[in-house]
Amino acid sequence: MKILIKNCSILTLQEPDMIYTVGQIETEDDRITYAGTVRETSGEYDRVIDGAGMLAIPGLINCHTHSAMSLMRGYGDDIPLMKWLNERIWPIEEGLTGEDVYWGAALSIAEMLRTGTTTFVDMYFFMDEVARAVEEAGIRADLSFGMTSFNDDWNDRMANCRRFFSEWNGKGDGRISVSLGPHAPYTCVPEFLGMVKSTAEELGAKIHIHLAETLDEISQIKEKYGKTPFEYVDGLGLLDLRVIGAHCVHVSDGDMEIIKAKGLNAVHNPESNMKLASGICPVDRMIKEGVNVALGTDSSCSNNNLDMISEMRSAALLQKVGSMEATALPAFRAVEMATVNGARALGLDDRIGQIKPGMKADLVLVDMNKPYLYPQHDLISNLVYAASGADVAYTLVDGKVLVDKGELVTLDQEKIFYEIDRSLKRLFNR
Amino acid sequence: MKILIKNCSILTLQEPDMIYTVGQIETEDDRITYAGTVRETSGEYDRVIDGAGMLAIPGLINCHTHSAMSLMRGYGDDIPLMKWLNERIWPIEEGLTGEDVYWGAALSIAEMLRTGTTTFVDMYFFMDEVARAVEEAGIRADLSFGMTSFNDDWNDRMANCRRFFSEWNGKGDGRISVSLGPHAPYTCVPEFLGMVKSTAEELGAKIHIHLAETLDEISQIKEKYGKTPFEYVDGLGLLDLRVIGAHCVHVSDGDMEIIKAKGLNAVHNPESNMKLASGICPVDRMIKEGVNVALGTDSSCSNNNLDMISEMRSAALLQKVGSMEATALPAFRAVEMATVNGARALGLDDRIGQIKPGMKADLVLVDMNKPYLYPQHDLISNLVYAASGADVAYTLVDGKVLVDKGELVTLDQEKIFYEIDRSLKRLFNR
Repeated sequence: MKILIKNCSILTLQEPDMIYTVGQIETEDDRITYAGTVRETSGEYDRVIDGAGMLAIPGLINCHTHSAMSLMRGYGDDIPLMKWLNERIWPIEEGLTGEDVYWGAALSIAEMLRTGTTTFVDMYFFMDEVARAVEEAGIRADLSFGMTSFNDDWNDRMANCRRFFSEWNGKGDGRISVSLGPHAPYTCVPEFLGMVKSTAEELGAKIHIHLAETLDEISQIKEKYGKTPFEYVDGLGLLDLRVIGAHCVHVSDGDMEIIKAKGLNAVHNPESNMKLASGICPVDRMIKEGVNVALGTDSSCSNNNLDMISEMRSAALLQKVGSMEATALPAFRAVEMATVNGARALGLDDRIGQIKPGMKADLVLVDMNKPYLYPQHDLISNLVYAASGADVAYTLVDGKVLVDKGELVTLDQEKIFYEIDRSLKRLFNR
Repeated sequence: MKILIKNCSILTLQEPDMIYTVGQIETEDDRITYAGTVRETSGEYDRVIDGAGMLAIPGLINCHTHSAMSLMRGYGDDIPLMKWLNERIWPIEEGLTGEDVYWGAALSIAEMLRTGTTTFVDMYFFMDEVARAVEEAGIRADLSFGMTSFNDDWNDRMANCRRFFSEWNGKGDGRISVSLGPHAPYTCVPEFLGMVKSTAEELGAKIHIHLAETLDEISQIKEKYGKTPFEYVDGLGLLDLRVIGAHCVHVSDGDMEIIKAKGLNAVHNPESNMKLASGICPVDRMIKEGVNVALGTDSSCSNNNLDMISEMRSAALLQKVGSMEATALPAFRAVEMATVNGARALGLDDRIGQIKPGMKADLVLVDMNKPYLYPQHDLISNLVYAASGADVAYTLVDGKVLVDKGELVTLDQEKIFYEIDRSLKRLFNR
């Protein structure tokens, strides 16, 4: 399969602001073979896409979400956190089946592909069902079972991680990777985290964990262990592995030193942190100090969408008002967070996150032919500060067109809606 | 002209959460004649719109913008304010002609209609050209010349206000109203504001002014007059008139008392306040204390779009993280800001801002048939937290369809782009 994308602008992400104003991209099978200025091509193409008026960007990488929670989008907004969890989310989650999770994940994958996300990092339960949805839809994902130490079935959990890893890691033509997902410092006791660490080492797996999301967590961990969440997990050796730490909102000077020394990959989730009133992650400072900060949406319960283009804008705007400094987190840094930094967090920066020959053909074409994206003094500004995921026209993963002129190719939206309705009818008894 | 919109959900705004899940709307000429549950209709309709899967909302009211500044969208983002003004905006503004302003306004009107805004409140120069664009496009607007006291041509300025008022107030079938636009406390000396006040009184016009936008303004006014910006304008009697005060970011307890006592209409511009690092307007507190707070985007230079749906989300999210309280500014309050509160600020709440028989047929249909707007536990949550202006399918003003299945009816986007390019070529000498 060879595809030619003609006459598009290209934001390569090879350098912060490396743009071809009128360029072309060529792919063969799952790889980019050319990205640059317009040139004569000799070969035959199976598909030629007219990219005139479009901006090509690397497929966006959503480094923290819980895809199946789309089932509960908008169910209990604007109420206090504990009331929301106790009265809304947990009672529903108790009733979830694997099939519910499959369709919830499928809905989110439909949304992500439609809005330009080609890779997502997911933590939930019934993850085999999420893996199945990922394999079928053609998107790329890193998957982990979210685990707490509340029950004493620790050995079973580790056995399940081993099974899940052996069954799914590398599957879907290599699009699926498997991580271990200890939920958070306040839900995992030290002995359990030690077990997670040794299992991850044994498998050669990454860790995906929530870290320092709320002030409540900070005081709980301080009270229990006399430490910050970062000190707590670092003291257990967890940060010696490749760790994706979601949120990292409350970061002391000492924590910053740990993050830098251990190369922790921080994932900023600005809209979730705003909606749940968690606080403001010191992204600008982290980036200036050399920390790799990726971007995520968190679930569509606390966002309420998985639109990574809007999320870039929210990240940039929040840093500015948070630091009272208009130059904080410029637009191109936000794009880096959503692409190259995400790839780096996953250890996949040799194959995704940039538009460059040899890299995977994970590509997004944003249709800039909109009144709000004109004039085009600065394509990066327009993308970050004025576009949204709704402006995505084409999404390719592994060289396959998965969104074609705004339409889903591998997923049937009506079928997904129908199945979601069936799940909800049972879950809500209505 | 009679229009029937069938089978849509309707968010009436008559009460905070009054929704018809499956309803219909009937219009005749410029008015809504029916809005409620589905019913048999006997009359003939010139147009029947299938609203299945769509949410009808009152046309959105953007209470503070500078429409022609779309010409400079993205021109100089992420640089310090004074450098941006001195090196980017002002040199370009010096060269602007009436024709540039006409096309800049037309571009913004195209964007606003496409994203569900039916009324906007505009302050700039060459306002006759903006009025012409408004009249032709069919949108509703309140227009004012932005005025400073820097030059001593005050009498000429007032004469121009009288002329503009008499030529345009009430024009466009009543869609156009004219206000007086003294720019801000820090750009208008007391004697000038006195003159503005008496001219406004003479004409029966409203005042549109920037108030307490930045900490820099607060210290300038304190140094010059020993007052806060609110105390300063109130001391001159300005707040005895109907005043639309844009921004109101920095509000002391004493200022809050003035705002309440004088019934000042505050306009919150969250994305601009974030992008320029101005600070966080105490919206939630203001609303709880009974202040009428409307919503605006500010210009597309400091935003960078005029999408009022995204702006509602930003307003709600910013209040939550700003107050560290997840219940602050719930979604329905954000919708009220963008509709009924805006109408109230303009003194037009007897005709716009709600879907109700007898009101003007300023209507927007949002296409909810999107993966990110499903399931529909809460339509208001989905609208505010997950939708964007790109999801608008139909926009009606005064009972006329101005956006039809996402396409502009009265404006030619390609022509606008072409003319914008011509303007930019001259302005930028390139």
